[in-house]
Amino acid sequence: MENKLCKWGFKNGDDIKEKSLFSIRSVLETIMENLNEEDGRVLIHLGRGDPSSIPCFRTSPVTEDAIFGAVRSAKFNGYAPAVGLYSTRRAVAEYLSHDLPHQLSPDDIFLTPGANQGIEVVTAVLARPGANILLPKPGYPFYEARAACSNLEVRHFDLLPEKGWEVDLESIQALVDDNTIAIVIINPGNPCGNVFTSEHLQEIAETAKKLGIPVIADEVYSHLCFGSKPFVPMGVFGSITPILTLGSISKRWIIPGWRLGWIAMVDPSGLLKKSGIAECLQSYLEYSANPATIVQGAVPHILEKTTKEFFSNINNVLKEAVDVFYAKVQEIPCFTCPYKPDGAMSVMIKLNLSFLEGINDDMDFCTKLAHEESVIILPGMIVGLKNWLRLTFAMEPAILEEGLERIKAFCLRHTSS
Amino acid sequence: MENKLCKWGFKNGDDIKEKSLFSIRSVLETIMENLNEEDGRVLIHLGRGDPSSIPCFRTSPVTEDAIFGAVRSAKFNGYAPAVGLYSTRRAVAEYLSHDLPHQLSPDDIFLTPGANQGIEVVTAVLARPGANILLPKPGYPFYEARAACSNLEVRHFDLLPEKGWEVDLESIQALVDDNTIAIVIINPGNPCGNVFTSEHLQEIAETAKKLGIPVIADEVYSHLCFGSKPFVPMGVFGSITPILTLGSISKRWIIPGWRLGWIAMVDPSGLLKKSGIAECLQSYLEYSANPATIVQGAVPHILEKTTKEFFSNINNVLKEAVDVFYAKVQEIPCFTCPYKPDGAMSVMIKLNLSFLEGINDDMDFCTKLAHEESVIILPGMIVGLKNWLRLTFAMEPAILEEGLERIKAFCLRHTSS
Repeated sequence: MENKLCKWGFKNGDDIKEKSLFSIRSVLETIMENLNEEDGRVLIHLGRGDPSSIPCFRTSPVTEDAIFGAVRSAKFNGYAPAVGLYSTRRAVAEYLSHDLPHQLSPDDIFLTPGANQGIEVVTAVLARPGANILLPKPGYPFYEARAACSNLEVRHFDLLPEKGWEVDLESIQALVDDNTIAIVIINPGNPCGNVFTSEHLQEIAETAKKLGIPVIADEVYSHLCFGSKPFVPMGVFGSITPILTLGSISKRWIIPGWRLGWIAMVDPSGLLKKSGIAECLQSYLEYSANPATIVQGAVPHILEKTTKEFFSNINNVLKEAVDVFYAKVQEIPCFTCPYKPDGAMSVMIKLNLSFLEGINDDMDFCTKLAHEESVIILPGMIVGLKNWLRLTFAMEPAILEEGLERIKAFCLRHTSS
Repeated sequence: MENKLCKWGFKNGDDIKEKSLFSIRSVLETIMENLNEEDGRVLIHLGRGDPSSIPCFRTSPVTEDAIFGAVRSAKFNGYAPAVGLYSTRRAVAEYLSHDLPHQLSPDDIFLTPGANQGIEVVTAVLARPGANILLPKPGYPFYEARAACSNLEVRHFDLLPEKGWEVDLESIQALVDDNTIAIVIINPGNPCGNVFTSEHLQEIAETAKKLGIPVIADEVYSHLCFGSKPFVPMGVFGSITPILTLGSISKRWIIPGWRLGWIAMVDPSGLLKKSGIAECLQSYLEYSANPATIVQGAVPHILEKTTKEFFSNINNVLKEAVDVFYAKVQEIPCFTCPYKPDGAMSVMIKLNLSFLEGINDDMDFCTKLAHEESVIILPGMIVGLKNWLRLTFAMEPAILEEGLERIKAFCLRHTSS
């Protein structure tokens, strides 16, 4: 029997490993293995976009009441349709339409267990032999992994730090061929914490139109904007080129563990619909995971009843955190922060290794930092920029300050003489 | 742009359609399109294994309290590890170990958003080029669909109605070759409502050992046994050949919409572990959907605190329903029920078309029945047996009786003269 067991393939897991694709979650787990148990100080985790355990980021009581109501009603214990409950799709369509020049229909909305699953579904449905997809660098590595699972070739375009992490539109033409099926943008930006202007979004839509491709607009951090630029959904430009918007309740309501997201077809010209994508999304969802029906049942109440105060309070905390962060980071000599974030929850920092001794690269920096200072941050290589770092600033400002103080001490201790 | 849109692949959806694979959910939706809106009678749905909306099948208050507690604690709003929360995996390991001769470890448990996702994960992880898998006929069509998605060839073995739907073990040897990677059994049986004896399970394990393959034991309906045979988990025979058990809280607690299941490695000899399957399951789960963390947080309480009375009450209702069903079905001349169910929630009925006029096949029967009698049942072709029917008996006994009365009237009206 052992001989036969050796032949078992375990293909998919291996595929991902062979392609050196790592999930943010697994890399953070690896880094955390280096924590020094004898360090009596509290761990400061600046590695992930999940502040749900921090008191000042606790979700709204509206959210909790919504799930209590859904469970008590006993109406949401059973299976939902593959695309989601109609009442929930209608609520999401209403919610998104507030910010759009035209009204979405419930039929434009497909519910997924979080936006990660939305990434899985759109990459799988768009994939075909020989196809390629345009992804931002730096970006969110779940795209690369799901593209690999669907045999979709990845072509990276740059985000430009000197231009507020805008898309390098001029370089895109050279990347595209007849097999290019879509361009992905993430706004507000993960990992860069930037917010695209309306003008830049329109340029992206017009570029996509010229190239004959739709835009996949990852708006998981929608409305988490605390600078001068408002959040503008890509769907505003849906009449220029079709948009597939990915969203969720994870970030704005700080409940990423509830696993509810959506794919919205913003397609007023009907081009996507004519090509049959709605049927294909439905077919794919018949055989993939669906969000918990009790959470689906809670969503209409969550979307309609959450107070403006809850949202503005979260944005105020994020703004205060960013101010603390940006002032403090100037004191760290080997760090360069090319852009002060005005959205989302994370920021990219350039690491100047020539200032440091005994640190080989960004991964080495994060591993040793975890061991010596009990601070967790993410190496930039995971999001596409070697020898950069991704830090999450969604943290109580005082703890964020303490975390940066420890990073500063670490850098000073390792400064080359 | 239209030209380019025509080229978009939408491969995965089409693949499934081309292979004539249909989900139970989508077939039921098609049949329901034939309902006659002018029929003033209430719809009787005997097509799906989801009685959660029926008052006598309402889930336990323990289940509802568990989710309230998890939400109130605010400890389960964030991301969980890809394989699931450790405390939840430990609770599942404890729960399953009650019925096993050896103790499972939390590391043997992988949480999935329902057992359907467990099917996705095990088929994907076991698949490799040229491989095949043994599936029961009749069975559960999600296996065929996920095998197709993973390019895994399906080879069907028969369940024998004249032997209480036991596996036709003698025929299996001829199906197997060096590329056979596993055999799937479903116990208690979906769609047949049978319960395997301990002796038969041991024979299956010994056959699998001889063939050098593990058993995938789908025990989604575990403990829903109300005849003379107790539920015996396949894992009892895990020392004969490795077992991958699929389970969930969906059926025993009547909350299929909560989307929480598990894959349990029952592998006391360590053969599966040595082949690296745990790492592959973990890798796959890093990039696929995870169950909602609030549901994960509720599971330890659900598994530990649900009363025996709740379980015995559900089994009593099911037993009463089966008694009503079995007596009533004898009155329908074109129906043959080869086996009175003693487990799970559904039963297979042979349709004798020669007794009927103007009914072409099982799908035609179900479509016309929906239109004329507002009763929904599932055509057997969907579960692998053409011109059979799958009926769910998980229903209030009085409504089940009314449903069968309507079916009888339909059959008498269409009896050939």
